[in-house]
Amino acid sequence: MGSSILLVSFALVVMILISYEPYSWMGVNASDVPTSCDHYCNQTFESRHQCYKWCEESAHKDHGYKLYGYPYSANTRRVLAVLYEKGLSFDPITVDLRSGEQKKPRFLAINPFGLIPVLVDRDLKLFESRAISQYLATVHRSTCTQLLNHKSYKKMGTETMWMYIESFEFDPPASILTQELAIKPLVGQKPDYKVVNETKPLLEKVLDIYEERLKNSSFLASNNFTLADLFHLPNIQYLMGTPAKRLFENRPSVHRWVAAITARPAWKKACDVKAWYGKKMNGY
Amino acid sequence: MGSSILLVSFALVVMILISYEPYSWMGVNASDVPTSCDHYCNQTFESRHQCYKWCEESAHKDHGYKLYGYPYSANTRRVLAVLYEKGLSFDPITVDLRSGEQKKPRFLAINPFGLIPVLVDRDLKLFESRAISQYLATVHRSTCTQLLNHKSYKKMGTETMWMYIESFEFDPPASILTQELAIKPLVGQKPDYKVVNETKPLLEKVLDIYEERLKNSSFLASNNFTLADLFHLPNIQYLMGTPAKRLFENRPSVHRWVAAITARPAWKKACDVKAWYGKKMNGY
Repeated sequence: MGSSILLVSFALVVMILISYEPYSWMGVNASDVPTSCDHYCNQTFESRHQCYKWCEESAHKDHGYKLYGYPYSANTRRVLAVLYEKGLSFDPITVDLRSGEQKKPRFLAINPFGLIPVLVDRDLKLFESRAISQYLATVHRSTCTQLLNHKSYKKMGTETMWMYIESFEFDPPASILTQELAIKPLVGQKPDYKVVNETKPLLEKVLDIYEERLKNSSFLASNNFTLADLFHLPNIQYLMGTPAKRLFENRPSVHRWVAAITARPAWKKACDVKAWYGKKMNGY
Repeated sequence: MGSSILLVSFALVVMILISYEPYSWMGVNASDVPTSCDHYCNQTFESRHQCYKWCEESAHKDHGYKLYGYPYSANTRRVLAVLYEKGLSFDPITVDLRSGEQKKPRFLAINPFGLIPVLVDRDLKLFESRAISQYLATVHRSTCTQLLNHKSYKKMGTETMWMYIESFEFDPPASILTQELAIKPLVGQKPDYKVVNETKPLLEKVLDIYEERLKNSSFLASNNFTLADLFHLPNIQYLMGTPAKRLFENRPSVHRWVAAITARPAWKKACDVKAWYGKKMNGY
């Protein structure tokens, strides 16, 4: 009987070792393991000790991310917000938009579209702020703020829908108004009020739909803050410093939502230019 | 010794049953299981018999999808291409764009943005063709054509990047040219050639970058056809019937890529208006 127990125990250990292939199903190596160990390891039944070990290694390591960007750039701030929400370390590399550095050969060799931000993660180079954000939110899914729901297809589908609503319904009019009312005055140009007056009703129509949605939901995709909300922040931040802020303030639920998302510490840090320049700077 | 073997066998069976929690980690129920059983079940070591059982049930079931759309609409065709690539059943519900049905109260109650397509999956309603496409490609990840790579964060990141490049770099100029050169002549209007001449160089710049990429890669995100390529199809299909086709044909690698993606049977079916109207039609 003693040998039976031994054999059963041996079989159990072998099965645990076989069935436990941590992260390999996603092609992830140990360096990608989330750092919020308590939260993460409580959710994995098997081999909690091993989980903590990986987690702690990850928490104390340099993530090795390099971010090419400019601290005043709306698209750079979108990625900064994700990095700060996730508590991830990174090296900022300044691409000075004022001197048109993003269109010079040195930078075009990095991103032929001549656009910032660019994230470098070892041998991976990513453009497009929303793609970079999704990548970071997915790789570090269990770290700090949960920016995407990876446990339900339906919730994920709803989040993706609101992310694309931002891209195709909100961003086009909001970007035009940001350009005319915020950026042009910053660089000493006058807004084109014909364009402003044509664009305002387009944004209002979108915000009317947001108002209805936000009457019944704390945030756009669900009652939790997600990437879908975060994607709106850069344009909203600029527009709140212009007369267009009334479009947001006149709608009570939109107003409440704007106050909630702009007050997040990670977002405040993303807008803090000193935080960017205070970091170690690399040439390139 | 006989009882030892029995005990070990029992323990192994128990471990397999415990460790095998099919799909529950993603919040998916059996109805979401992919239908291409051979392909899928060959990749899962455990409980292949059970896998085939689920698969066959799924293959013979009505997926219950309803698609509000219009067979000439570029955005509807994007989702149709995914449905056909995945071999999924759906009920088409025609929203006649010619009579402006998408802006009438009956449809605005379904999508307040007044846009098609809309996918209904039981209690889930999704707008935005790219979000619907991602949802279907994720839920049916192992069925027929693999449109997204879910096994590697890095590959997923690269695919997401190319999807956003389509959204933010390719689609804006391509949509304008589609509107001016394809849609306007279809409804008896003349193109605005000032707009055309301003937009062409923007698309050419994007296609120059695509040309470089496609010299070294069969498709945009990798050597496999993915959603990133599929997203381009609706605009490309329209533009290939206009003088703007030269912009694609003048670039050998882009030309090869366009030929490959437009020749896909799923895409040909997505453009076949008879295939839409040949299906059972629902009122709404």
